[in-house]
Amino acid sequence: MTITVPFKQIDVFTAVPFKGNPVAVVNFLETPEAEVTTQQLQSIAKWTNLSETTFLFAPSNKEYNYKLRIFTPAAELPFAGHPTIGSCRAYLEFTNQLNSGPQTILQECGVGIVPLKFDEEGKISFQAKKTEVEEISRETASDYAKALGIHAIEPPKLLQVGPAWVVYLVSNAEAVIDLNPDFNFLKQVSDKAGHTGVILAGSKNDGNSGEQYEMRAFYCPTISVLEDPVCGSGCVALLRYLQEIKNYQKTTLVNVTQGIRLCRDGHLRGRIEIDEKTSQISYHVGGDAVTVINGQISI
Amino acid sequence: MTITVPFKQIDVFTAVPFKGNPVAVVNFLETPEAEVTTQQLQSIAKWTNLSETTFLFAPSNKEYNYKLRIFTPAAELPFAGHPTIGSCRAYLEFTNQLNSGPQTILQECGVGIVPLKFDEEGKISFQAKKTEVEEISRETASDYAKALGIHAIEPPKLLQVGPAWVVYLVSNAEAVIDLNPDFNFLKQVSDKAGHTGVILAGSKNDGNSGEQYEMRAFYCPTISVLEDPVCGSGCVALLRYLQEIKNYQKTTLVNVTQGIRLCRDGHLRGRIEIDEKTSQISYHVGGDAVTVINGQISI
Repeated sequence: MTITVPFKQIDVFTAVPFKGNPVAVVNFLETPEAEVTTQQLQSIAKWTNLSETTFLFAPSNKEYNYKLRIFTPAAELPFAGHPTIGSCRAYLEFTNQLNSGPQTILQECGVGIVPLKFDEEGKISFQAKKTEVEEISRETASDYAKALGIHAIEPPKLLQVGPAWVVYLVSNAEAVIDLNPDFNFLKQVSDKAGHTGVILAGSKNDGNSGEQYEMRAFYCPTISVLEDPVCGSGCVALLRYLQEIKNYQKTTLVNVTQGIRLCRDGHLRGRIEIDEKTSQISYHVGGDAVTVINGQISI
Repeated sequence: MTITVPFKQIDVFTAVPFKGNPVAVVNFLETPEAEVTTQQLQSIAKWTNLSETTFLFAPSNKEYNYKLRIFTPAAELPFAGHPTIGSCRAYLEFTNQLNSGPQTILQECGVGIVPLKFDEEGKISFQAKKTEVEEISRETASDYAKALGIHAIEPPKLLQVGPAWVVYLVSNAEAVIDLNPDFNFLKQVSDKAGHTGVILAGSKNDGNSGEQYEMRAFYCPTISVLEDPVCGSGCVALLRYLQEIKNYQKTTLVNVTQGIRLCRDGHLRGRIEIDEKTSQISYHVGGDAVTVINGQISI
């Protein structure tokens, strides 16, 4: 039996259609989860051919806003950055809450409950659950330098933020944009080390406008997706890395742009939040999202 | 300025959602073509990430039904098989002609005017414009045998049907389904020869139910798309090849199935049509198409 439910395809980290990172969102808020199989969800995600397709379900507990299941064309993911922001935008639109003003949203997903903020500017941000820093060997760092064709200005580190990104900081934004990696060698190095890929970043600070970076994300496990256009988890990795090397003592905003080489123009707003009383640090990534396709899907 | 127009994402060569080959169709029938740039169309096709996104415009001449522009994420194509069938289905739905009964539709596109039939069963078929057969060298045939790991039962030939497919016939359908090509070597052989890729086919005839084949399409120029799930131009190539080796004297139906290894279940209906008076031969490929996503797109 065919069921027809609301559907949106949303562009994330942009307010301009086709300049961000797309996610397909299927609205199962009114559909009992038992009525659809995991295999069906996987088939849909394979068919849309986007990096991620998500499914909104009613939450298991009324304290949360919705439950989200996230699929790549190949597998289910416990969490992903841009799909979370796009799905939250879709949730607000599906439930007519876009004009209800700023609010906190609690997303139930594979990593637990992710807190999201819908702010007064209409931007949505999530708080990262996992931000562990690990060292990488000199040999691996040297291999990455060869594959990327450029030396890091600080020792690269492994950031476990869900995906396992190596953050690789270079001298400036132009170097990030101009870089042409040896993708085959990069994949070899990354595969050997068991990493997801490389987050390349360079400062575009002019000295007085706060922290600003140009970023690229080379996604290495599959040769079919060489570069992610605008990457939420990559931005989390960059924030955590910057805190590691710069040791900010107060809350710091980090604006990140990404996607120029893929004809995109993504804007990620990062925030390293430091609680003045407890000194506890949390990492937040957000931005705009815009609905490009709006309609229904028949399953 | 954002414009919002009707949009459909259609599954082709199947009546069951997610079992065929998808195409995204944007309805610009009411939008003057000068109002959108080629760059905009390309951006949309890059963003949907489907093998093809198409754009329906008003035709240049009232004798034709519509003008179709077809884009992959990388470039504009003069013609493509499954996108033509999906776009014709979308056209019939957009213009409320689904229940108007069988008719002939004339599609204006990069290769000229393509005649389509919407039949009494609701299936849509197109007549191939280009069906040229060329020989390939023994050396190249031998390289293909190595890359595929199986010998052809008839000499493979190059079929120029828009794409340049090498048709490679093996002993039976099971051999087609079970085959695991050496994709890297296959790409080398295909690139060196300047071919689009390989159409692999094997008969599943039980002796009394007409011509029936299992088919696969290995698309070699980009390593990112290894296998096309259900391939219209590949079916044209197979029909023309079968006529070359079997020399049918009267109109022959060829039913083709494709996609099992990619969890699809595509059905292509091929027809080698031989005019009894003139002996002129034409090649037709068709099948079902079903609308999966129906809504609007904001550009």
